[in-house]
Amino acid sequence: MNARVGSVKTITSTANPIIKAARALHQRKARNESGLFLAEGHKLVLDALAVDWLPEMILMLEPGDDGDPGAQLAARVRAAGGDVIFTNGAVMEKLARRDNPQTVIGVFPQRLASLATFTHGTVIALEAPRDPGNIGTIIRTADGAGAAGVILIGNSADPFGIEAVRATMGSVFHVPIARTDLDGFLKFSARFPGPAIGTHLEGAVDIRTIGPEEPQILVMGTEQAGMTEELARHCSQLVRIPMDGAADSLNLAVATGVALYELRRAYL
Amino acid sequence: MNARVGSVKTITSTANPIIKAARALHQRKARNESGLFLAEGHKLVLDALAVDWLPEMILMLEPGDDGDPGAQLAARVRAAGGDVIFTNGAVMEKLARRDNPQTVIGVFPQRLASLATFTHGTVIALEAPRDPGNIGTIIRTADGAGAAGVILIGNSADPFGIEAVRATMGSVFHVPIARTDLDGFLKFSARFPGPAIGTHLEGAVDIRTIGPEEPQILVMGTEQAGMTEELARHCSQLVRIPMDGAADSLNLAVATGVALYELRRAYL
Repeated sequence: MNARVGSVKTITSTANPIIKAARALHQRKARNESGLFLAEGHKLVLDALAVDWLPEMILMLEPGDDGDPGAQLAARVRAAGGDVIFTNGAVMEKLARRDNPQTVIGVFPQRLASLATFTHGTVIALEAPRDPGNIGTIIRTADGAGAAGVILIGNSADPFGIEAVRATMGSVFHVPIARTDLDGFLKFSARFPGPAIGTHLEGAVDIRTIGPEEPQILVMGTEQAGMTEELARHCSQLVRIPMDGAADSLNLAVATGVALYELRRAYL
Repeated sequence: MNARVGSVKTITSTANPIIKAARALHQRKARNESGLFLAEGHKLVLDALAVDWLPEMILMLEPGDDGDPGAQLAARVRAAGGDVIFTNGAVMEKLARRDNPQTVIGVFPQRLASLATFTHGTVIALEAPRDPGNIGTIIRTADGAGAAGVILIGNSADPFGIEAVRATMGSVFHVPIARTDLDGFLKFSARFPGPAIGTHLEGAVDIRTIGPEEPQILVMGTEQAGMTEELARHCSQLVRIPMDGAADSLNLAVATGVALYELRRAYL
């Protein structure tokens, strides 16, 4: 437990520097510089507290009496050393950038995992995913299907952007996330104690026939153009998800879900 | 082949009534009243033409010489009786509502399938899906995994909204889509020559153990709250997708993909 108890303030102006700094976290630049990110909603703040991922601050509508779940949340955050800012609906809308904001927004420190910690289970590696919703959805799927973590390779969208975090539905606090470039990934993969199984539209082998075993890496290519040749060449095996229609390919998050359930079939 | 050859016009003002009418198709009300929708991109217009789903009109940047794929597309649309409007980048941006628009936008008549046409294969039924991206992604997945069609039950988002159509990646032109209310679905399901298999977090049976056979209906509940009790009660069987982590549930499109691949396993 943190010795310091967090402060409480009431701020109702969108021009206040604290509010402006929180709003700036919609920009990737501000997130990179501060190492912080926004997570919306009572449930997500609870998810974070449950794994001792403490918010620097939460901003929320002023709760009612002590029986109000909001009051209890504020007390928990303060006890853990986080600050609590009470504010109004107009500020919450500005912070959330939407009409129908949550009643609580947390400002959290980002946490990235080191690649060296990925040594077991099924690790998902995504080549330069650009859609924040896909990244968040895949983090949620990794959580639901018990993957060991998610590696973002190269020029990826930010997993700590608000859209990605929303799509994780709280799994951003449960799933280790690492970032690296292609070279870093290839070095990691060469040392990893299991195969790198790449899904590829031209994969010669049906993913359902390979008898996968952990540890293993599931490698997914880019959204637009599939896997780059260099990455494909370094996979231990290229497998295909069976297709049966006019569509060329599946959405990245759906393909990752289908492949992950297949690779973890013996463990679920 | 349509006897009438489409007209060609050049319009460069966003105030032009044709442009305004096309832009209005971003609104569900205008789509409902006109029975039209927008689909962006050269590939999607080709996908539509390939199945004789003819655009009323396409709007596009003026192409170069006759060898330009845009010129060829315009000629094909005209020959099929659709009008061609040449316009500029500013108008295309307004029409697409994005910074980086496609070079072609088609205005298409909506087509909904009758429930009576769904008699075979695996039919996907979605209870009141609200996220257009999910709906479009599921239509794409239905196409990729060879489902027979998608039924939208109740208060669903519009499959012909621009976001949904974008997410289909062209599969909106391949996959029969039907809409009905709960009552209509229950009547359909009672007559359907196979079981309605509902996925449910509290399903007693692992979806991988049921030995599914076509014809069958895959029933998916709402995004926020899962399946309503009334719909669950009318399913032939409730099955669960195995989960192994802290996440409560999967994203609807991912869950539908995983379930669909499982139910069609013997056919893929």
